[in-house]
Amino acid sequence: MEMNTLTQKTSLRLGEFDIIAAYFKDLTDQDGVALGIGDDAAIIDLSLQSKIQLVVASDTLVDGVHFPSDASAYQIAQRALCVNLSDMAAMAATPRWFTLALTLPKEKANRQWLKDFSMGLAEVALEYNCALIGGDTTAGPLSITITMLGEVPVGAGLARSGATAGDGVYVTGFLGDGAAGLLAITKVDSFRNKPKIISERLLSLFYKPLPQIITALKIRHLASACIDISDGLVADLGHICRSSGVAASVDTAMLPIHPDLRENFQDQCHGWALFGGDDYQLCFTVPPADLSIIDDWIYQGELDATRIGVIVSSSDNNPAVLIDGFKSLERLRGFDHFIP
Amino acid sequence: MEMNTLTQKTSLRLGEFDIIAAYFKDLTDQDGVALGIGDDAAIIDLSLQSKIQLVVASDTLVDGVHFPSDASAYQIAQRALCVNLSDMAAMAATPRWFTLALTLPKEKANRQWLKDFSMGLAEVALEYNCALIGGDTTAGPLSITITMLGEVPVGAGLARSGATAGDGVYVTGFLGDGAAGLLAITKVDSFRNKPKIISERLLSLFYKPLPQIITALKIRHLASACIDISDGLVADLGHICRSSGVAASVDTAMLPIHPDLRENFQDQCHGWALFGGDDYQLCFTVPPADLSIIDDWIYQGELDATRIGVIVSSSDNNPAVLIDGFKSLERLRGFDHFIP
Repeated sequence: MEMNTLTQKTSLRLGEFDIIAAYFKDLTDQDGVALGIGDDAAIIDLSLQSKIQLVVASDTLVDGVHFPSDASAYQIAQRALCVNLSDMAAMAATPRWFTLALTLPKEKANRQWLKDFSMGLAEVALEYNCALIGGDTTAGPLSITITMLGEVPVGAGLARSGATAGDGVYVTGFLGDGAAGLLAITKVDSFRNKPKIISERLLSLFYKPLPQIITALKIRHLASACIDISDGLVADLGHICRSSGVAASVDTAMLPIHPDLRENFQDQCHGWALFGGDDYQLCFTVPPADLSIIDDWIYQGELDATRIGVIVSSSDNNPAVLIDGFKSLERLRGFDHFIP
Repeated sequence: MEMNTLTQKTSLRLGEFDIIAAYFKDLTDQDGVALGIGDDAAIIDLSLQSKIQLVVASDTLVDGVHFPSDASAYQIAQRALCVNLSDMAAMAATPRWFTLALTLPKEKANRQWLKDFSMGLAEVALEYNCALIGGDTTAGPLSITITMLGEVPVGAGLARSGATAGDGVYVTGFLGDGAAGLLAITKVDSFRNKPKIISERLLSLFYKPLPQIITALKIRHLASACIDISDGLVADLGHICRSSGVAASVDTAMLPIHPDLRENFQDQCHGWALFGGDDYQLCFTVPPADLSIIDDWIYQGELDATRIGVIVSSSDNNPAVLIDGFKSLERLRGFDHFIP
């Protein structure tokens, strides 16, 4: 029985959460917060005049698992909040409030670390207009759990389950940057002969993915299903398929891959785009009648998205996601440069 | 840079959260849950007909810090949920929904552990009528963060800040059991010559504290301030005092201490009741006009609470909490048998 650290006084000094709180009381909009940080719980006023539903998601980031141990407090905070905001985008919800549960080893529980962490968090919170309403700081191995609360008009939330055969399949932004960013962190040598700006862009995206809130709100009334790509396109589109009882066919020639990756990692980039994770782009489906609206927005530059495939009917023998007409596992063998 | 475990596939197998989900879909009331476990976020229907505010709290429990490493999955789950429910009691809120962020080392990520954990969680959720709506399972050092959502009628929530001079100070149940329970875990020898039933009661309370929801709802319209006792009476009543700009005077002769502790730990029990933590009882204040109602309820056996002191006006020289008229630090010296 390991009991060395089991004590009654398990919270860090009160003052340490106060540092975090201090950055939020002035910086971020506390609209709707009737009672904020500093009590046993927060109290929120709901906008009862408009009919809304509450959207709730929790995500944990663990040291050495979701970020490298030498990541800065500022970087960790930004990634933690962005990853949680991405869940709001996946539901087409407007992020409003969040709680922070920060578990921190004693050696990091100093003013500078907490100040850097708070700054990173506050910048993202300000950018996405959501307010820290409370939380918990605890001594222990470094991990961060954020619970994000958002709002959608009743019935407007996008679940994974609405896709039907014939719907177009779209993704936002570029795919594969998440996997390449992880490589830039774990295998620095792979980037030795590449221009420095390539790994800089990837590292910046790794620590601050760009939650697709604005895009999600724009396509909300047209899309039939939506998910954010955290486990990889094939895995996440597979979630839409299983939830919707359909299959999907993806055309690899259409995958949006950044020129940096196409030029420098031509053998790996398609594998990353299909099977890599951590992109935090959206994958969404649109019924046939509305495809032209979406395609027109894309053409006009009003929407940063790409049509990559189509939803097809599912049979028991069918895998969830077909890639260029092949079962995805067979196709995976074609991307053997992919580093899992 | 410790990078061994940094990978893209950081979630445990999907099936493992499904085990947890399976225990909740049938067991607990999913009232108000428009979209539950299995999407990127949960969607909640708010009861718009009655004017309510949302109450939100997050609490983390870490292995070896908040529970001993040999605690069972069932015990850990019960303690985690009860501690979070206690925050709802502290606000006089009705618990409704919660998310679970479970970080679990690979060696514990097996069906039996998850089944035991789910059972413990489901039993408490059923008892307190709240529903698991989503969460995250991650590989890493064992810790549990629960975010609890509750409801209060607009303005009915009890903050720490409402106490004024002349208010009576009450606590529910018994004090000191939390500190004694911790001793029963960490220093088994202290209980060697005592009847076994004593440590059994304390261990049972340690792993399943009794969130005072019903009491909180009963006193909600009368109390001026409320907190749950997690850091110890003096510390937590001190929070009420600082938030309210008042001081408090406590009479140790009035402290409710279980006969087991009075008889077997007569030297330590008052120290535990004052300075120990983990009791998860409520400390609340009541204006003079309503004291007779509360005292009558107590007399009639309708309310399990004890009046232990009075709120007094604060001066700069005043400590927040006076114990038998003494400053609490002086008084602490009188309880030198107290094991911190």
